[in-house]
Amino acid sequence: MREAPIRRLTIFGVGLIGGSLALALRKAGFVEEVVGCSRRASHLREAVERGVIDRFSLDAAEAVSGADVVFVAVPLGAMRQVFEAMQPGLDPAAIITDGGSAKQCVVDDARAAFGRIPPGFVPGHPIAGTEKSGVAAAFPELYAQRKVILTPVEESAPEAVARVRAMWQAAGAEVEEMEGHHHDEVLAATSHLPHMLAFGLVDSLARMRDNDEIFRYVAGGFRDFTRIASSDPVMWRDICIHNREAILEMTARYQADLNEMMQAIEQGDGETLLQIFSRAKAARDRFCNE
Amino acid sequence: MREAPIRRLTIFGVGLIGGSLALALRKAGFVEEVVGCSRRASHLREAVERGVIDRFSLDAAEAVSGADVVFVAVPLGAMRQVFEAMQPGLDPAAIITDGGSAKQCVVDDARAAFGRIPPGFVPGHPIAGTEKSGVAAAFPELYAQRKVILTPVEESAPEAVARVRAMWQAAGAEVEEMEGHHHDEVLAATSHLPHMLAFGLVDSLARMRDNDEIFRYVAGGFRDFTRIASSDPVMWRDICIHNREAILEMTARYQADLNEMMQAIEQGDGETLLQIFSRAKAARDRFCNE
Repeated sequence: MREAPIRRLTIFGVGLIGGSLALALRKAGFVEEVVGCSRRASHLREAVERGVIDRFSLDAAEAVSGADVVFVAVPLGAMRQVFEAMQPGLDPAAIITDGGSAKQCVVDDARAAFGRIPPGFVPGHPIAGTEKSGVAAAFPELYAQRKVILTPVEESAPEAVARVRAMWQAAGAEVEEMEGHHHDEVLAATSHLPHMLAFGLVDSLARMRDNDEIFRYVAGGFRDFTRIASSDPVMWRDICIHNREAILEMTARYQADLNEMMQAIEQGDGETLLQIFSRAKAARDRFCNE
Repeated sequence: MREAPIRRLTIFGVGLIGGSLALALRKAGFVEEVVGCSRRASHLREAVERGVIDRFSLDAAEAVSGADVVFVAVPLGAMRQVFEAMQPGLDPAAIITDGGSAKQCVVDDARAAFGRIPPGFVPGHPIAGTEKSGVAAAFPELYAQRKVILTPVEESAPEAVARVRAMWQAAGAEVEEMEGHHHDEVLAATSHLPHMLAFGLVDSLARMRDNDEIFRYVAGGFRDFTRIASSDPVMWRDICIHNREAILEMTARYQADLNEMMQAIEQGDGETLLQIFSRAKAARDRFCNE
């Protein structure tokens, strides 16, 4: 029998993202053993029961001992601490990658924790997920045909990048590479800003008098529009803090555009409104060819 | 055989909304004959071919001749003209109702067109629809378990309100009554504002340099979030113009809340962000119990 390309994979944060990767790689026969680590034994026990991981340790250094690949899928605010905690047990040849929604901050955290960027370090971001979280939501097809963006740094060894790429491909993903700063801007526009708008809208309505009545009249469009507002608050707090600049810049641009639109409404300028709506509809129909 | 409750129903604007009502009422055996009217013969011919209407006229007065119920499902900007054009052919006992997304303006248009509000006039708004439009998108189940809000005015005869209520119930809808001004505020919050935000976001991204690249990295959440930006631009231009005040007010509140959120991001105030996101998630999970 052919040996699995990964002998031991250690996953920090065995939730939707980490758990789904484990399930996908197991299904593909790409990994022999999966070790889980997080702060809560109850979560890890559940992950063992669900067959997502083989075993776990609450000690980060112990968890990475003998691992050839380490995947860190914790909120951005916990990255640095996890890197620091794993360091004593880490094999110098180990591949370390992550699933963080912003990439510059993860590189900074790794540099701070390890003293330098290890050659096995390859930052990554799977553009996948649902508004659900937790290991119970994990499923092996989460990454099928989804994009994974790797943002290798100068120090990342080409062999390490190749192995991380192969891992994600085994999970069914399409892998691309991008510069970290550029990644953070693109994701601020396509993911972080929409989440802010959706969280903001639901909270705005929830704070209104008679909000119970208001929510009674929402239709299907509103449900779709606000689905992302059911996402994990801790994860999103951390994204805001760690991709602050890009989010603030994109939101400022958006607010300027929204102000223009409101001005057109105020002035009864139907021509401008029609232009905006038509341009938006054309763009969406083009890129979301459903 | 029992006579159908509506002998002749005339529909102005045989698209998703008008066409789906026709299909639902036919299926329920609630109507004997459906007559269509709009500006384009080609659309009406298609509606006949699809079995949505029995026949059509391009002349509004002729189209309503002998109709006991008239349903107006045209963009808000066309309401007044349609009311004016139908008047010469209208049976004084006819019920007139509509599907407009704002209600105060429709009442004003009816008053202007008819000189006074006829006793058969019952403004209404089915809270249903998809981002699709046109008769090809119509289907008889569109209103099943959907809310329809009637906003009768002082002049509306109670029998007329009862007949419109019965019609929508036959189409599967849950019918409620509300004061028109209040309807316009509630819908500005739950429907019009979200549409503005979605149109605005897609247009904002489409106007960025490298927008092709940006749209390549959108994930499922973004597709859901922006689905409503594929809605009909003309309809939405008209809603903006005709529910201007409520939309401007709700958007101003929303922008103030969004500014608070951005201030928290700028200050790295994770506690406030966590509060906002948690409150939003709790509200959404509660009202969209999926």
